[in-house]
Amino acid sequence: MKPLGPIPEHFSAREEQLLLGGETAAHWISEAGDTPLFVYSSTIIGRKVTDFRSAMPGRLKLNYAIKANPFAPVLSLMKGLVDGFDIASGGELELVRAAGIECDRVSFAGPGKRDDELRKALQAGVVLNCESESEARRTIALAEQLGETPRIAIRVNPDFELRGSGMKMGGGAKQFGVDVERVVPMAKLLFEAGCDFRGFHIFTGSQSLDGEAIIETQANVLVLAEGLARDIGRPIASLNIGGGFGIPYFHGDTALDLRPIGEALEACFDELSENLRDTEIHSELGRYLVGEAGVYLTRIIDRKESHGEIFLITDGGLHHQLAASGNFGTVVRRNYPVAIANRFSTEPTEVVSVVGCLCTPLDRLADKALLPRAEVGDIAAVFCAGAYGATASPAQFLGHGPATEMLV
Amino acid sequence: MKPLGPIPEHFSAREEQLLLGGETAAHWISEAGDTPLFVYSSTIIGRKVTDFRSAMPGRLKLNYAIKANPFAPVLSLMKGLVDGFDIASGGELELVRAAGIECDRVSFAGPGKRDDELRKALQAGVVLNCESESEARRTIALAEQLGETPRIAIRVNPDFELRGSGMKMGGGAKQFGVDVERVVPMAKLLFEAGCDFRGFHIFTGSQSLDGEAIIETQANVLVLAEGLARDIGRPIASLNIGGGFGIPYFHGDTALDLRPIGEALEACFDELSENLRDTEIHSELGRYLVGEAGVYLTRIIDRKESHGEIFLITDGGLHHQLAASGNFGTVVRRNYPVAIANRFSTEPTEVVSVVGCLCTPLDRLADKALLPRAEVGDIAAVFCAGAYGATASPAQFLGHGPATEMLV
Repeated sequence: MKPLGPIPEHFSAREEQLLLGGETAAHWISEAGDTPLFVYSSTIIGRKVTDFRSAMPGRLKLNYAIKANPFAPVLSLMKGLVDGFDIASGGELELVRAAGIECDRVSFAGPGKRDDELRKALQAGVVLNCESESEARRTIALAEQLGETPRIAIRVNPDFELRGSGMKMGGGAKQFGVDVERVVPMAKLLFEAGCDFRGFHIFTGSQSLDGEAIIETQANVLVLAEGLARDIGRPIASLNIGGGFGIPYFHGDTALDLRPIGEALEACFDELSENLRDTEIHSELGRYLVGEAGVYLTRIIDRKESHGEIFLITDGGLHHQLAASGNFGTVVRRNYPVAIANRFSTEPTEVVSVVGCLCTPLDRLADKALLPRAEVGDIAAVFCAGAYGATASPAQFLGHGPATEMLV
Repeated sequence: MKPLGPIPEHFSAREEQLLLGGETAAHWISEAGDTPLFVYSSTIIGRKVTDFRSAMPGRLKLNYAIKANPFAPVLSLMKGLVDGFDIASGGELELVRAAGIECDRVSFAGPGKRDDELRKALQAGVVLNCESESEARRTIALAEQLGETPRIAIRVNPDFELRGSGMKMGGGAKQFGVDVERVVPMAKLLFEAGCDFRGFHIFTGSQSLDGEAIIETQANVLVLAEGLARDIGRPIASLNIGGGFGIPYFHGDTALDLRPIGEALEACFDELSENLRDTEIHSELGRYLVGEAGVYLTRIIDRKESHGEIFLITDGGLHHQLAASGNFGTVVRRNYPVAIANRFSTEPTEVVSVVGCLCTPLDRLADKALLPRAEVGDIAAVFCAGAYGATASPAQFLGHGPATEMLV
């Protein structure tokens, strides 16, 4: 038997039925027409934003990294909840514009921005987090052609990483940003070209559940930014200190305690020198805001025994839930939180594997998990499906196509 | 430095330029309009089919598993090259029909077939490789409703696996097929319901480069099929003996020698008893036929140094080449064959990492590889991109969308 991840605290049941936005999973499936289905809860997203804001210093701005979940209704909801938006491609720029988000709230990071993406971004007036000297020169030349003044921040590759993070984006050689010692000459290049220099983007890692590490990293980021601001000899308008706030996916994971992180950041803010005193400081979160708000619902279409093991075969799979299948950025496969949505309060009595409908042994949503006895027609729910689910999975694999998504 | 995989033997160059179908990579990029681009060579696909057929017994039928590459022009090409087609979903059924492939050449396997998929398949007259008793009962009931006689084979979960295969589909508890001891009662169920019983589908694994293991497994499959045919007491019309033929992806991988595999199979065929004497025996190949025929072309848009390491940043990435990035079904990341398409004959002199444009450290197409010095505007080519590339990658990740595909 292999343990399941912890079901996020925000969920409850009514007469055995998992509730999402006050209605049962079955209700939303009927609304959507069929499984598989992603349901995102606006209540949970709202609560995550509120909790974060109330724990953090009032001065801290909150950005949403749309790559975590770019579903149009989620973007519309976020429009009223967060301060800024971070995009990572020209395609994402189109998504934020389609959601009616003002481009002066948007910044664009990504190590490989194509000319057509830079052009669109320059015309829209979004801030470009510039990742190299050659990208800076390319941007300046394109801006000149277009008669635009580029709004540019420098993405810095810090010399430190976020300890214990799932994805390290700093420390050592990286494709992201420019090494610290090249920031000052690069800033001068931007000043000389008459750019609207916005400041720095310093992203060190993501998906950390180690509050101490986040505290340490945020302090390091601020020290680094102060040093850079001093070296370039002028105050900076804006600083993106990154994110890194993780959510519990696996057995043994514990949710972050935001309060000490906020207090430590407040203490750092109190000590800031002149150059950062009036700087807009942004935190950039994606997964932390939306990951726990999403549930992936899939119907059990076969229940099968093979050599004494039970398999619940669903109409979903890794084509919508690549990370939950253990095939995206993880070395050892572990179970996400999974439940039977229509037997949510039933005592678990049976060890089963919940698999997808794909013809590959990789397609496993829960491996040897203890669940209530489930039958054909029951609904398996995979939690923590709100971030890096639908768009971070190979939807066209084996011809199945994307799942329906709903914000409720 | 980490070694690159071996470039498939079928490629050559003219004045430094990699040739695909007799033209340069640059030519096809100009035809397509831009990078990133998949180019599939019909010549190489044709040669792979011819080589396979000439090494195997004349009696062996060849099926194409379209999941490997369902690009419409590839299906049209295969229509004239192979005997049968294997599909894994209702979506793939639509693809073969759109390519004008006759449904009596098609069989459908998959552990989780939905009712609507079964209905479409029954009406089209494709053979259903049935994966469980409950699926059999569901199929019979649906066929009765539709007034169709179901054409059904039983997918068997063999008690042995294909040794050394990348994906094990047999041996022990599996979600695929029915355990051997349940095949005879299940066949009786089908006979009694008046189904058109076609035979067996026995798939043991895929992506093996061990010729001895393939020989042993094919012999085991035939022995198993003979025993099952004897036990059900009648000759069988059709037998799918699976595939398993791998292609070299990584340093140290060696291509299969088909001749001894064909000779061993011929010897097995000579010994077949009455029950399999007139059986159509099919091999099911996907990756082996198309994998080496595809090249993924992506443009270098930045060349960057960080802490002494060189990064070539491309406009492609794991959103089109998930497996090459090491994030699909592999535990240890190893380099696929990668080259600079417009410096194809140049001596490699520089250790670089070729990365994608996505804002994640997972997006790496070649890690610390020895390549010729490449500049911005050069084209990086990832080989072995013809199977499980475009459709097995999260094309919507970070808003980039799919790459263009061409069959040349």
